[in-house]
Amino acid sequence: MKKLYEGKAKEVYLTDKENEYMIRYKDDATAGNGEKKATISGKGELNLAITSAIFKMLEENGIKTHYIETLNNRDMLVKKVTILPLEVIVRNISAGSFAKRYGVEEGIVFDTPSFELSYKNDDLGDPLMARDHAVSLGLITNEEYDYIRNETLKINELLKEFFLKINLKLVDFKIEYGKTEDGTIILADEISPDTCRLWDTKTNEKFDKDIFRRDLGDLVEGYTEVLKRMRG
Amino acid sequence: MKKLYEGKAKEVYLTDKENEYMIRYKDDATAGNGEKKATISGKGELNLAITSAIFKMLEENGIKTHYIETLNNRDMLVKKVTILPLEVIVRNISAGSFAKRYGVEEGIVFDTPSFELSYKNDDLGDPLMARDHAVSLGLITNEEYDYIRNETLKINELLKEFFLKINLKLVDFKIEYGKTEDGTIILADEISPDTCRLWDTKTNEKFDKDIFRRDLGDLVEGYTEVLKRMRG
Repeated sequence: MKKLYEGKAKEVYLTDKENEYMIRYKDDATAGNGEKKATISGKGELNLAITSAIFKMLEENGIKTHYIETLNNRDMLVKKVTILPLEVIVRNISAGSFAKRYGVEEGIVFDTPSFELSYKNDDLGDPLMARDHAVSLGLITNEEYDYIRNETLKINELLKEFFLKINLKLVDFKIEYGKTEDGTIILADEISPDTCRLWDTKTNEKFDKDIFRRDLGDLVEGYTEVLKRMRG
Repeated sequence: MKKLYEGKAKEVYLTDKENEYMIRYKDDATAGNGEKKATISGKGELNLAITSAIFKMLEENGIKTHYIETLNNRDMLVKKVTILPLEVIVRNISAGSFAKRYGVEEGIVFDTPSFELSYKNDDLGDPLMARDHAVSLGLITNEEYDYIRNETLKINELLKEFFLKINLKLVDFKIEYGKTEDGTIILADEISPDTCRLWDTKTNEKFDKDIFRRDLGDLVEGYTEVLKRMRG
């Protein structure tokens, strides 16, 4: 199969169907916009299993995603989309770049979810964008912004509830959207401990990529615990 | 008089009236968040004259400002307000930090004005804020955001027209709002070539603080030309 694109944590392949891509989940981990790198055996498999289960749950709740099926322990079949160059982020609790940027502590619980967009561009360091910036640069229309914001806040509610049931607080997460050939915007990329911050409801122990970013312990152990709780 | 606060380009003094402050316009110029500094004789006087005329024009067009009167060639009497810790920015044409942040050229004319907020905090480098960030951090309410955005876009239209009449394009500008004791939000701070980018409509020559930031020539000459055109 022809590799179309290789990202930091995934590879995208063409398939024999024109409207379907295959995504291979890699064991590579990066942090700090690629400054820190490692290969962590087992990570790809765990993220694929977690993302698959979450996409299924979201589909069952009326969210349109690119997910078609999980092919094996590495590969996911998805609908062909053109990824919008935006990182869509929701924060329920202050952490990470938010806490650093605004000089506040981590762990502040917000009254309402905080929605933000970043320009997906490694060379520029994925800079934060105001709504008007994305529109002014022609990345999305105002109507598309409204749709994405609304859909994302729905996804936040579904994910919060999903993780709360397994005693994890959804601190924040990053998602990406893609456009199908007919112009429909659907959820794409992945939803995993690589792209969510998940803290234990009782101990605040971290079960996400901060384990790797901050050298807090064994990432595979943490992600395995998430999957274990998901499977009850 | 007791000095209440000294900023990079102005000083604020108490007056004998409880609800009035006096603002002294200084000759100091800074750029790059204070990295570049100079004293430019005549700048304070020019900015006071330009700001005074613009505040009068805005008041005549229904915009509430802190302006009361110009006392002499250095000092302005204003209503007492508590400044909101937000830099409110409108961009009509790409330039400066916008062009740098998103890797685009200067001079792109936007279809609609681009509105943004920054957190007014020198130590943090005045970081950009999404709407929800300002609300999540309790800096403003959603209702206040809507009011400020609406008022700012009105101000943009008035300023664009004002400058176009004297053959200057309003590229972008930064304003600040303050709250009076009864909670009313009014326009405060200054509006001058220190806080606006102004390009000649024919030659694109710069008549603003970029003269200082980028060592393009004589700042006082540039600001004097703006005032001269304003006075017809």
